[in-house]
Amino acid sequence: MSTGHVVTALRLGIETPNEAHIFMHKDFHVCRAEGFAARSSLVVSHGRKSIIATLYHVTSDLVGPDQAGLSEWAWKELQLGENGQVAVSHAPPLESLGRIRGKVRGNRLDATALRDIIDDVGAGRYSSIHLSAFITACAARALDYDEIRDLTRAMIDAGERIVWNGKPIVDKHSIGGLPGNRTTPIVVAIAAACGLTIPKTSSRAITSPAGTAATMETMAPVDLDLATMRRVVEKEGGCIAWGGAMGLSPTDDIMIRVERVLDLDGEGQLVASILSKKLAAGATHLVLDLPVGPTAKVRSYEAAQLLSDSLVEVGRSFGLVSKAIITDGTQPVGRGIGPALEARDVLAVLQGHAMAPADLRAHALTLAGALLELGGATPDGGGVKLAAECLASGKAWAKFQKICEAQGGMRTPPVASYQRVVTARTSGLVERIDSRKLSRVAKLAGAPDDKAAGVELHLRLGAPVSRGEPAYTVHAESPGELDYALTYVASNPDIIGLARA
Amino acid sequence: MSTGHVVTALRLGIETPNEAHIFMHKDFHVCRAEGFAARSSLVVSHGRKSIIATLYHVTSDLVGPDQAGLSEWAWKELQLGENGQVAVSHAPPLESLGRIRGKVRGNRLDATALRDIIDDVGAGRYSSIHLSAFITACAARALDYDEIRDLTRAMIDAGERIVWNGKPIVDKHSIGGLPGNRTTPIVVAIAAACGLTIPKTSSRAITSPAGTAATMETMAPVDLDLATMRRVVEKEGGCIAWGGAMGLSPTDDIMIRVERVLDLDGEGQLVASILSKKLAAGATHLVLDLPVGPTAKVRSYEAAQLLSDSLVEVGRSFGLVSKAIITDGTQPVGRGIGPALEARDVLAVLQGHAMAPADLRAHALTLAGALLELGGATPDGGGVKLAAECLASGKAWAKFQKICEAQGGMRTPPVASYQRVVTARTSGLVERIDSRKLSRVAKLAGAPDDKAAGVELHLRLGAPVSRGEPAYTVHAESPGELDYALTYVASNPDIIGLARA
Repeated sequence: MSTGHVVTALRLGIETPNEAHIFMHKDFHVCRAEGFAARSSLVVSHGRKSIIATLYHVTSDLVGPDQAGLSEWAWKELQLGENGQVAVSHAPPLESLGRIRGKVRGNRLDATALRDIIDDVGAGRYSSIHLSAFITACAARALDYDEIRDLTRAMIDAGERIVWNGKPIVDKHSIGGLPGNRTTPIVVAIAAACGLTIPKTSSRAITSPAGTAATMETMAPVDLDLATMRRVVEKEGGCIAWGGAMGLSPTDDIMIRVERVLDLDGEGQLVASILSKKLAAGATHLVLDLPVGPTAKVRSYEAAQLLSDSLVEVGRSFGLVSKAIITDGTQPVGRGIGPALEARDVLAVLQGHAMAPADLRAHALTLAGALLELGGATPDGGGVKLAAECLASGKAWAKFQKICEAQGGMRTPPVASYQRVVTARTSGLVERIDSRKLSRVAKLAGAPDDKAAGVELHLRLGAPVSRGEPAYTVHAESPGELDYALTYVASNPDIIGLARA
Repeated sequence: MSTGHVVTALRLGIETPNEAHIFMHKDFHVCRAEGFAARSSLVVSHGRKSIIATLYHVTSDLVGPDQAGLSEWAWKELQLGENGQVAVSHAPPLESLGRIRGKVRGNRLDATALRDIIDDVGAGRYSSIHLSAFITACAARALDYDEIRDLTRAMIDAGERIVWNGKPIVDKHSIGGLPGNRTTPIVVAIAAACGLTIPKTSSRAITSPAGTAATMETMAPVDLDLATMRRVVEKEGGCIAWGGAMGLSPTDDIMIRVERVLDLDGEGQLVASILSKKLAAGATHLVLDLPVGPTAKVRSYEAAQLLSDSLVEVGRSFGLVSKAIITDGTQPVGRGIGPALEARDVLAVLQGHAMAPADLRAHALTLAGALLELGGATPDGGGVKLAAECLASGKAWAKFQKICEAQGGMRTPPVASYQRVVTARTSGLVERIDSRKLSRVAKLAGAPDDKAAGVELHLRLGAPVSRGEPAYTVHAESPGELDYALTYVASNPDIIGLARA
């Protein structure tokens, strides 16, 4: 009983990110004898590896009578070969669920409870139903300061932590939701050129048409292991790497997937999410970018202020010196939406082109200036000036090229084979740009998988435009994807809102 | 765009009760072009039928490059033939989720919000992640009286409703968790024999080793359609039918599956669950049985009293006259655990055997007595006496046989081919009986699928027992299942707790 029934594992090739599913025939005598009901939690073991999986019954010949089909995540976690065997048994009761039920009833979560919950999340013992309950309970019964701090600590401890020699280690974070907000490569280049240490790790896009790692990848390799990242940072003072494989706050990645489905993350969980990632990466000084706008993640200045206060205060308890900057998030930043198009904007700013997007440049200088002050590269009040000089002198551009070389060699962002200009239907002043719909167009065109695909915006809020003038250009790598995007454009005439001039 | 991409549907035979899953190859150009990310909600349409399904990416040849694999629930809801085609597109935003986010923040749910949520649940638009958030939010931000009433009404309106001629229509409901608590057939027989109308619908077991419908099925058919049920009730005054296919409060079934995984249902949701089922079945007078015990659903008398008050008060707003009876739930009722073994206890009580389980008889008379008073068959205070006379005179037994005949013919419960007696390891007084572990033994032995399988208990709390005396007998239909059960018994010596006499 204790070791379970041994059955032949079958690789089904179904992706269930961060959650294991097991598929067994409903008439399999083991299911019946053990009372393995639909959605039972089972322990599935192979050698020394062991995971918790949610059971689905199968009534077809998808799995044989003595087989257990496994999803990809389960297969990989168990490190199964092509014809492995696994032992299955009832999962022990999930004790930490009792703490969540307590939170639902109004009890506080102490440090031990949060550690137990996060340990179970990290070990894959929580199904998406459990994760949803945890996230909802922590939003309905708002986490207090101590709970946020203890949650942050448990999330850090659940993963790897990078320790750097020396201080300060500076970092920046933008709270998402704004297309084209690709300030990171510029900020890193300026900070490193001014002598600060900035080992930046970024995520790939999950639901957006780009993401810093995807954009950076069109200019240099980003898939660095920790040793390579250290070498780059020691040599150049900074890097822009993909953090996804480094195991930093892995339970954050697990919870974010469920938060996205619910479009719900309580303030406490958002703070713990951001701080756990940054602290695990070794940051000591952090600048936070909080864009506020109707389609951004933070939609009011009051909400931004509360979030900012909480981030700075909880960060302080970990010795993190941080500053939050509330910025304008009413329209996309720069011209490009999509990895290569956003990289083109970044390069234009770094190279000092006359036609470089002024908003991206200004936004990057604001953040870099704050970081230079926070990291001690310049007295307070001198940050933006120093950042602007660093950019104007070409030092930031030179540093960026060296970072790219150190990461494995600089690349030229690709250009899409198929492009189509979308023109203004009437004349007037641009009074609204729907960032979410523009992101959708970019994704339909192939971004972020097709690096060259996306949208190039030719208008800004308040600009006058005449009927027939270019509004934006859709870039795609195949005629089919261009068509998908243009069909969507045709049925959504409200992407750019015009007022009579 | 609006009608979606047409792809070939593939029946995978994966059961996902009350929730649709769709499986598409990750490299399928439609997934990439449309940005169908993992766990996206998609509209899947076939002819006039349309459902919302959660997307899983596949990386194997489980589904072809232009196919969409569908789970059984999706396949059946869409009424697909063997080689159907379906159209897939992004699901529209789930507007009612905004009301749940509002509840999380502390807003009340008004009648419209609850109707919108329950409509979406009933239409299969909520994934288990959404359901978990709704259930958790309603438990963390407790529903007030108006919210419970409005939720109950929305749940009733989401399904079928049976209308009976004449009044009163009496009913009983036991809040679960206690093995062997099979009073229903006895209560129905007594009530009908005394002239009341009691059209009882019951569920099959989901996690327990029996269930009223499964137990009744060993004595008569229970899978009645509405017309047959009406005929039985018109003729005999009562029935004991399976309610699962009648579409009464179907959203309750959907939510209960998630509540079980979380082991969480707020008082408000429990009240709405019970009342919506009973009101949809047409009840006007209801007796509620609330067993209280350490392994029962309700674990304290205070909790039972609060629940009872809420049930009676909300029921009143629908014109339902109800009475809650708080009973002892510290040990299994009767001797049998498992469909046929519980049926044997029921028959012994109805037939007036000298050896019939006294606790089952007493419990059934208490409930029947309350129902007789509530339904007006006798003045207050005379119920138990009338019930006992009805049982002693053989009238209840005669009525039960007639009901079985009307339902399709009386059957004799089967007897298991394999039986093994488990004896006491030491001598002493029985001070504890672990109902949950005994249920587990019964399920390992094959209950409820093998109708004859289960456990027959030979001891009661407080009874003296000598080493080597029979404690309980395990019944099974195969040697393998008997072995599973006995292996579990061997590794769990604490099922019966003895104190030195």
